[in-house]
Amino acid sequence: MNVVNNKWIGQRTIRPDGVDKVTGRAAFAADTTMPGMIWGKVLRSPHPHARIRSINTAKAEALPGVKAVVTARDIVDFTIEKGAVMLGIQDMRWMCRNVMARDKALFPGHPVAAVAATTEAIATEACKLIEVDYEVLPWAIEIDDALKADAPILHEFNKFDGKPSNIMGRLESKKGDIAQGFKDAEVIIERSFTTRPVHQGYIEPHACLISVAADGKTTIWSSSQGQFMVRAMTSMLTGIPQSDIRAIPAEIGGGFGGKTIVYLEPLATLLAKKSGRPVKMVMTREEVMRATGPTSGSKSTVKIGAKKDGTIVAAHGSFYLQAGAFPGSPIRGAVGCSFAPYDIPHVLSEGFDVCSNRSKVAAYRAPGAPIGAYAVECVLDELAEALKMDPLALRLKNAAKEGTKAAHGPVFPRIGYIETLEAARNHPHYAAPLGKLQGRGVASGFWFNAGGESSAQVNITEDGNVVVTTGHPDIGGSRAGIANICAELLGIDYKRVSVIIGDTQTVGFSNLTGGSRVLFASSMVVTQAADKVIATLRERAAKVWEIDPEAVKWENGAAHPVSPNAGQFEPLTLADLAEKAPSQGGPIGASVQLNTQGAEGGFGTHICDVEVDVDLGIVRVVRYTAVQDVGRAVHPSYVEGQLQGGVAQGIGWALNEEYIYNKDGKVDNPGFLDYRMPVCSDLPMLDCALVEVPNPKHPQGVKGVGEVPLVPVMAAVANAVHNALGKRFYSLPMSPPKVSEALDAPTQQAAE
Amino acid sequence: MNVVNNKWIGQRTIRPDGVDKVTGRAAFAADTTMPGMIWGKVLRSPHPHARIRSINTAKAEALPGVKAVVTARDIVDFTIEKGAVMLGIQDMRWMCRNVMARDKALFPGHPVAAVAATTEAIATEACKLIEVDYEVLPWAIEIDDALKADAPILHEFNKFDGKPSNIMGRLESKKGDIAQGFKDAEVIIERSFTTRPVHQGYIEPHACLISVAADGKTTIWSSSQGQFMVRAMTSMLTGIPQSDIRAIPAEIGGGFGGKTIVYLEPLATLLAKKSGRPVKMVMTREEVMRATGPTSGSKSTVKIGAKKDGTIVAAHGSFYLQAGAFPGSPIRGAVGCSFAPYDIPHVLSEGFDVCSNRSKVAAYRAPGAPIGAYAVECVLDELAEALKMDPLALRLKNAAKEGTKAAHGPVFPRIGYIETLEAARNHPHYAAPLGKLQGRGVASGFWFNAGGESSAQVNITEDGNVVVTTGHPDIGGSRAGIANICAELLGIDYKRVSVIIGDTQTVGFSNLTGGSRVLFASSMVVTQAADKVIATLRERAAKVWEIDPEAVKWENGAAHPVSPNAGQFEPLTLADLAEKAPSQGGPIGASVQLNTQGAEGGFGTHICDVEVDVDLGIVRVVRYTAVQDVGRAVHPSYVEGQLQGGVAQGIGWALNEEYIYNKDGKVDNPGFLDYRMPVCSDLPMLDCALVEVPNPKHPQGVKGVGEVPLVPVMAAVANAVHNALGKRFYSLPMSPPKVSEALDAPTQQAAE
Repeated sequence: MNVVNNKWIGQRTIRPDGVDKVTGRAAFAADTTMPGMIWGKVLRSPHPHARIRSINTAKAEALPGVKAVVTARDIVDFTIEKGAVMLGIQDMRWMCRNVMARDKALFPGHPVAAVAATTEAIATEACKLIEVDYEVLPWAIEIDDALKADAPILHEFNKFDGKPSNIMGRLESKKGDIAQGFKDAEVIIERSFTTRPVHQGYIEPHACLISVAADGKTTIWSSSQGQFMVRAMTSMLTGIPQSDIRAIPAEIGGGFGGKTIVYLEPLATLLAKKSGRPVKMVMTREEVMRATGPTSGSKSTVKIGAKKDGTIVAAHGSFYLQAGAFPGSPIRGAVGCSFAPYDIPHVLSEGFDVCSNRSKVAAYRAPGAPIGAYAVECVLDELAEALKMDPLALRLKNAAKEGTKAAHGPVFPRIGYIETLEAARNHPHYAAPLGKLQGRGVASGFWFNAGGESSAQVNITEDGNVVVTTGHPDIGGSRAGIANICAELLGIDYKRVSVIIGDTQTVGFSNLTGGSRVLFASSMVVTQAADKVIATLRERAAKVWEIDPEAVKWENGAAHPVSPNAGQFEPLTLADLAEKAPSQGGPIGASVQLNTQGAEGGFGTHICDVEVDVDLGIVRVVRYTAVQDVGRAVHPSYVEGQLQGGVAQGIGWALNEEYIYNKDGKVDNPGFLDYRMPVCSDLPMLDCALVEVPNPKHPQGVKGVGEVPLVPVMAAVANAVHNALGKRFYSLPMSPPKVSEALDAPTQQAAE
Repeated sequence: MNVVNNKWIGQRTIRPDGVDKVTGRAAFAADTTMPGMIWGKVLRSPHPHARIRSINTAKAEALPGVKAVVTARDIVDFTIEKGAVMLGIQDMRWMCRNVMARDKALFPGHPVAAVAATTEAIATEACKLIEVDYEVLPWAIEIDDALKADAPILHEFNKFDGKPSNIMGRLESKKGDIAQGFKDAEVIIERSFTTRPVHQGYIEPHACLISVAADGKTTIWSSSQGQFMVRAMTSMLTGIPQSDIRAIPAEIGGGFGGKTIVYLEPLATLLAKKSGRPVKMVMTREEVMRATGPTSGSKSTVKIGAKKDGTIVAAHGSFYLQAGAFPGSPIRGAVGCSFAPYDIPHVLSEGFDVCSNRSKVAAYRAPGAPIGAYAVECVLDELAEALKMDPLALRLKNAAKEGTKAAHGPVFPRIGYIETLEAARNHPHYAAPLGKLQGRGVASGFWFNAGGESSAQVNITEDGNVVVTTGHPDIGGSRAGIANICAELLGIDYKRVSVIIGDTQTVGFSNLTGGSRVLFASSMVVTQAADKVIATLRERAAKVWEIDPEAVKWENGAAHPVSPNAGQFEPLTLADLAEKAPSQGGPIGASVQLNTQGAEGGFGTHICDVEVDVDLGIVRVVRYTAVQDVGRAVHPSYVEGQLQGGVAQGIGWALNEEYIYNKDGKVDNPGFLDYRMPVCSDLPMLDCALVEVPNPKHPQGVKGVGEVPLVPVMAAVANAVHNALGKRFYSLPMSPPKVSEALDAPTQQAAE
């Protein structure tokens, strides 16, 4: 541990980006312009499934003001190898077809062509002049429809079990002998669940402004979860080398995983290249809802067997996840995370990736994990009921801890899952009385957390302050967290540290802001760079004092002799040494690039109280407490914000959010008025209880915190609803029509 | 020497910034906008010298649309210590008074207040509403007026020789015993000369766009010769810490030294801070001519003594340079460079810094050196005539070489001055016949060249290309030069290297683009960074092959085993290793920061032919050859461009450029129509002969080349005019009225 004196780590310092954001000055993707800029618009398929016989762009190109038109012909084609289907969401073989339909349109909203014109209105008008000859094909939206024997097949070459299929792949985690496990069990609960696709719901629609010079030098200004991802994908889809693309990250108005892929950037780049003009593209909310994200809808079956004393001996999960038009649903999260909080000897967890005529799913906060946890944590609730055990006690009895081998592979180091269960059990919320038609539920959740590549520079300014540059968009507060850590390490006021997000050409390669990796990984490289800077500062002071650098220590922002024996010298501050830098060898700074390791998984346990309005069928969350092992809360306000944000999104997923499809296979509610996300007035104060079990593999004990908070929510809400009504829901969302219907049903057991 | 195979160094590769510039897409300082942006304008003193009794801004502030007004009260005041006067052009005690008059206005055009308003027209109108109560004082424009016993004193506290004076300082270089030297001499020539202030004449006027958030975080977009200089000066004059200021370098439309200080940035920052809005300021050409630059006018006396065989034994130079309103004329260049090409036993070179009511001088291409060389090289021409020696032979006899101790201090390492003299002597130009009323002159020149702080990053992209980031604005082709060097070092096509100019917060501290330092210093840090990258690449290949990194060599863009004994392996290219990077420890890149040393001085020798139109008094340069030791011509087209540019500017200085002052002490020709810079049709093709004596202290042998070419020009032209007419001019410019007057005069010797 580098930090012995926590003056800044753990402080709620003023966030460096805060003023710009509250004064409206922060520049998001749509907030910039370039001289000579024109506008791009996308023509989208009206059909869920159609063969594109031909596209005639002549009339559009002839419209005055139109400067360029592109179709799939202009995008680099990655041949789809028949048979071997990779499941990564960033697989270019699919990406090149997702940004622009090639041969077939696979969902309503699928781009078919794009136009750039001098005004947005002309570009929109030109889109209407493009003649597309479609052969409309039968379609499938839901998993059951896509899995029928006579289902229309989206990708004809794909086979599963030897037959053409919309199942694009299968993944499993295994531990022990599942058959033996269930033989050993004395109580077995098996239930099936469905969830609906939900959108990430970021405030800022996708947008970009792109300039391509005649020699191919490209400048991209866009909002994303990774400027290097934007550079790489745009490079691959346009053929422009990465070294010629400068991707500048705008401030980002939310991503939640949904901005880990590109939609507009390759199109705008090609339009800019063809037209010779900078091209701006901004999606409407309707385009966002029809053609980006969401996460998968799902169909799961979970079976858990236990001894009568509550010892879980076997668990089987089977998760079918919608991928949308192209493979790549987050089955890894569902398969790997669902049973990870528990030490179970026999586990089989399997996932299936199912295509259908919906927009391709994108990552969404702990992708796949909430879907799996919803099923597993609801079954555990029933198991506790069957065993007449307290649900937290059941989890405590089976909780994973240091040394537990998870079914998905790793052996856990020191983790804090048990601490979250104990904190939840001891929290006043858990013992608080409930009112009429109120109920309480608990649930836990796990997310892998990610490490990966990060780069950082730490430079000392001439006036003795500090500038840190990293390569990740700041979504969850990384600038504030890094300022705290850097101030701590250097022993100076945090206001003297400015943290900057570099573009792709001015900072080393840095992977996505995603996987809850950013503060973990970037503080690791920043710490190494700060250590190098401190070593230089000690050397410089040693030079002034003409003593050995080993005889110099860095403390409270200044060099001191380690002991009076080393010599009697006045401390040399950062400002003193910065002033002397030119005559002592030059500027003081360091940069570090790493593929970071050791981002251990995170755990949370949530308590939810609901009250059901039985007349209207409305479920209201009336109290909520999220307990989470956050490793080290470098900036507690941001950590709490992450927890609160995750819970709010989970409540939406549990209670209201869903796409309504009409008979033509199109989404009927592509906007925030009809697609019902929770707003402030829908929610109580969301309480947080932070448990800090430092990550032993990180210099400050940092652990990812951004994704875990979404994982337990739907199960916690569902278990609370059961507790309130005595009825169980196996299908999300638990929206008013569904709740009303269940309340009217005669049996105790509610069915969809 | 790192480079053994010169595949790219020395190639005339396509310049990376070329396309953007020729298509008009390059973004200069005035080419960007920000949402909510307003406009700033400066109110300037109409008087050459006036005490400011009071400033009333109330009416201006009341004008609708006006958002902020600033005066000297808003600028951080650096107290002027009485007596001790520093001569640096960047001395903040003067800078704070140069950007805004405090107590006294010292030249016509001196800023007195600045206004920001919603439109440029309103800001201009508001300036007129500011009431300034001036007490007009007597003024002095020329050196002789400023040195008169009863001259008005600009800085009352300043004393010289115990008396209040406009002489702000004196500097000398000394070697041997000057009195003894002249006793030893058999021939002595002593002459006095005057030159006029000339402006750098950059195409792009000063401009900036600045945003200051409510918490002080500041973004500066401006054109300058150093984003770090802009950051530092703006920080000092506004009190905002450097870590909070992000200075982004726009493309720059010429600087020539004139953009090494700030004029607008502190004012726009304060206006932005007060108004809460981004503020744009763009100077008109008239403002540029009245209130920025130029270089000094001068008055010099040079006396040189020699033996009859041509051995120079003594030299004395006395150089009075105009500083303008504040001290800081380039006397160091005049004093140090003038005699540096010669090995003279006894030298005294002294400079005097003289203030007068002109705009403060700024650096201009080899500041001070051309002024000194003009006098020295004209006297040498007379000396050669007196000794009946060929002027190049005289110079060869006395030329400085390896081991010569220059009067200004250094002992020269291997230098190429003699090679330039020999190349000039052997050049066909030197033997070509001359026509009627034509004459030929030669002259040499020296410039120190600078090293100093530079930082660089070299990053390998995921697709195996290279991005280099440095911290200096590219004025003279550093991007192209570095691309060549980096391609050479890494053994790849130069098109795979992109060179980017980072802003102050994304690259380590890098000193000004000035002193002919940039390619010298930045290629030094880039070379070290590339070496580190190559070391990493060798380690990575060694890991794949499971052999020792020492057994791996990097050649032709790939890792190879050093010998068949090391193992039989297929080469691993940059792209191969970039692809493997994530699994081998992470991104590949390195950064280096240095205070570079070893930028040895540069020498040039020029041959000029003129033809005089005796009817109109017009001197036309009809042939010109610039010979220069350029160390290593990394990109010969750029080197030639530097030589040609310097010569063109020198011809303007020699023949036409000067400010015309009216009776009110104001410049009467503040624009390119009346201030006569040479245009293309005024000049012949300017030939270059590059001599390459590699700098032994640089990995590629690089030597600064940008400033030397201006140094010899005025003397070469003057010597050619004498050769054509038999008359000598001791005063620049040799403009048509002056030439006509001299032609009409009865004597051989022309007087001013």
